Amino acid sequence: MKRTVFFISDGTGITAEAIGHSLLSQFDGIELKMITKPYINSIEKAQLIVEQINQAAELDGVRPLVFETIVNQEVSQSLKKSNGFFLNIFSTFLSSLATELNTKATGSVGKTHSISNNYVDRIDAINFALDNDDGSRTRFYDRADIILVGVSRSGKTPSCLYMAMQYGIRAANYPITDEDLEEGKLPAPLRDYKHKLFGLTIDVDRLVSIRNERRSNSKYASYAQCQFETKEVEALFRRENIPSVNSTYYSVEEIAARILASQNITRRF
Amino acid sequence: MKRTVFFISDGTGITAEAIGHSLLSQFDGIELKMITKPYINSIEKAQLIVEQINQAAELDGVRPLVFETIVNQEVSQSLKKSNGFFLNIFSTFLSSLATELNTKATGSVGKTHSISNNYVDRIDAINFALDNDDGSRTRFYDRADIILVGVSRSGKTPSCLYMAMQYGIRAANYPITDEDLEEGKLPAPLRDYKHKLFGLTIDVDRLVSIRNERRSNSKYASYAQCQFETKEVEALFRRENIPSVNSTYYSVEEIAARILASQNITRRF
Repeated sequence: MKRTVFFISDGTGITAEAIGHSLLSQFDGIELKMITKPYINSIEKAQLIVEQINQAAELDGVRPLVFETIVNQEVSQSLKKSNGFFLNIFSTFLSSLATELNTKATGSVGKTHSISNNYVDRIDAINFALDNDDGSRTRFYDRADIILVGVSRSGKTPSCLYMAMQYGIRAANYPITDEDLEEGKLPAPLRDYKHKLFGLTIDVDRLVSIRNERRSNSKYASYAQCQFETKEVEALFRRENIPSVNSTYYSVEEIAARILASQNITRRF
Repeated sequence: MKRTVFFISDGTGITAEAIGHSLLSQFDGIELKMITKPYINSIEKAQLIVEQINQAAELDGVRPLVFETIVNQEVSQSLKKSNGFFLNIFSTFLSSLATELNTKATGSVGKTHSISNNYVDRIDAINFALDNDDGSRTRFYDRADIILVGVSRSGKTPSCLYMAMQYGIRAANYPITDEDLEEGKLPAPLRDYKHKLFGLTIDVDRLVSIRNERRSNSKYASYAQCQFETKEVEALFRRENIPSVNSTYYSVEEIAARILASQNITRRF
């Protein structure tokens, strides 16, 4: 049986999605059709959504789940006239939080993700990640919060960009090459920054498949080459005492959170 | 009065933070000290957190707020022995959701952000954004979901990377230069893809300040130049019927959500 899920917000919908995904990940074997409706900030817009919820209920033969984070109570109430099953974090938690804080909610919308002092830190961090990607520049490692190291295509760039975007962390990355591994030593530009290094490892099969998408049937993408590099880089990390995480099993969110949890890095937001 | 806020999770903590930030953005004038504790997945780890919560309560003279998303009920219960004010989305919503779905929660941790089929789409999209950044490559615009256009430093690159990371959208971007604006025509590489174009505008003062950080006291960063470019690019967008958003007032999350809401783009996750 298919079930439609609505994420409805007067802002971007990101919080509603995060809550919904977290809760729904606790249930197996249900086919879900997910629909996000951001910027629902008027009764007129809410009424259009009511129709869509009711249509989905009729089509599915079961009422849709609605994860809703609308601040305005009138808009929120007019949505509730639909045939949906509602979970609303504002109406559930806001009044008890107001009591605890001994103050009133302001009722303003979408301040979480609005432009703030974070803006400059975030753009700086993204630019830092781009300018110091893949060993392209190494002279500003004194400014880096962390330097990710690993073989080519082990997931360094997306992890650096995510840390910049989510936490404002200045993350550089440096590829460990074939030649570095044959020498068995840390590349020279890294030696003064050992305390900032964090390793990414990857399973051979995954690496073979990723490299084949870029350069198929090359030596670079061969099983033997990938096996050599993954094995040697792990040995290097052990010898040099570089902490690491295997990117085969974790998303960039998880890689970033694990790095933060294990290193002494201060988030900028 | 300072108030400590804990975000505690058995996963990355991203959902707990999203919920907490959303709710707390509804209250003004409270000084908050925020602490995230990810991967709290055992009673031993929970007990260490209990001490930290109690210490903060004593130091602040008021109990901390605790936004908690721990699946395991034993771990969650042992945390509750602390002197904190708890908001827990699992204990609040999970049982009513289970009743509605007529099934039981699995109790497994952190599946939301785990590696899944999204992985390939996401990495593809990030690589697409990097390879097609700043007009560096234009021959794959047929593969792009969207092409952001705007003057240099109007926020195109971070917006493209965010859309790739969050939604798996393949977003290219192309800078509109001085010369393009003097000619008053769309640059040639964009003309076949008008339906994919989305504009970013920016206020003169903001642009002056951003450009000065990159190349201070240059013609590029001068008020006259920035004024010319911002005015002309807005005129170009109007003439060519290119929808746009002003990046001065919105975060990358909001820019991305607004583009998705206004364009007919299919998210990959």
